[in-house]
Amino acid sequence: MLKSRLAYQTVSTSLYRDFRRRETLPSSPDLLWQIESGLARSITWTDKGKIVTLGLWGPGSIFGESLSLIRPYDVECITPLTAFMLPRDSGPYLESLLDRVSCMQQLYCIMQVKHAKSRLMEFLCWLARQFGRLEAEWYYFDLHLSHQIIAETIGLERVTVTRMLGGLEQEGLLERVSKTAFKISPAKSFLNP
Amino acid sequence: MLKSRLAYQTVSTSLYRDFRRRETLPSSPDLLWQIESGLARSITWTDKGKIVTLGLWGPGSIFGESLSLIRPYDVECITPLTAFMLPRDSGPYLESLLDRVSCMQQLYCIMQVKHAKSRLMEFLCWLARQFGRLEAEWYYFDLHLSHQIIAETIGLERVTVTRMLGGLEQEGLLERVSKTAFKISPAKSFLNP
Repeated sequence: MLKSRLAYQTVSTSLYRDFRRRETLPSSPDLLWQIESGLARSITWTDKGKIVTLGLWGPGSIFGESLSLIRPYDVECITPLTAFMLPRDSGPYLESLLDRVSCMQQLYCIMQVKHAKSRLMEFLCWLARQFGRLEAEWYYFDLHLSHQIIAETIGLERVTVTRMLGGLEQEGLLERVSKTAFKISPAKSFLNP
Repeated sequence: MLKSRLAYQTVSTSLYRDFRRRETLPSSPDLLWQIESGLARSITWTDKGKIVTLGLWGPGSIFGESLSLIRPYDVECITPLTAFMLPRDSGPYLESLLDRVSCMQQLYCIMQVKHAKSRLMEFLCWLARQFGRLEAEWYYFDLHLSHQIIAETIGLERVTVTRMLGGLEQEGLLERVSKTAFKISPAKSFLNP
């Protein structure tokens, strides 16, 4: 989503940190992180322990407790991730925030699609546009996400996601290129009509 | 959401404009609006004409085509509204954007509540906190929203919203103070546990 908009090009290397898959980024009220490479998700959970994904984020995205009123709030690495600390008072992350507003609106819009299979298809198209590459009329993207994470992002059950991904493949709407890579044609997406 | 954070206190009066209920704010790629008073919603619609609400906004909120990648995109006044044009290049609307990111996350979180009545209750609590006033342990708020707008905001049918509002009243979770005003106790809200 923010591929071409990395606001910080001259960050001190001492502010960089590498994180492993599933690791949680350190958090404090004054700390902001910006992703350099990798994929993460912000999450919360209910008192019954059910995880709710609040967003999926790639290079350029900014996080921090101060960007969310929702508690509990964690940022979990989906892939190995490099991020750097962002001084809370420095200005030039406006573009990232504009992108983030836009991104949240799109995810909110996808959540309003009632029919589960259509919602999943919209989400896959969104993923492809955000994190994939366009070749001819197809988007290629590496699906780093488990079916569980997809389910927690768009409010479905894991078994439903697994069943429907199979269905979309059979219908030719989604094509498996390798174990984790897919290609998809987002031509009919609701958000990109 | 942005009540105490109006970034602009010294805007030329020539930039102010009043809008009527249901009027649409003028739009262009370089134009941003900030609400001074009143309530608005950003909307899109499907090719079948079904309206999807993208967000509800009060004083301090900023809009514009450049904040959304979703097309079509309109901002419609729910109440009479006063707004002023914001120069696209001027800086100090960062706080408003931080609030907007947070706000979108909350709406997205509410959309993940599967059970329709619980989702409606979460949304009412959110409305109360955003636009209401707290007295003792109750939030008082004027529900300027039609049942149709509520339905279009949280992905339900209008008849479902009408039936469930009646149910919540009967259960004592929601209390009608006047024709449009309600009081509610958001103590058990998912977003504010």
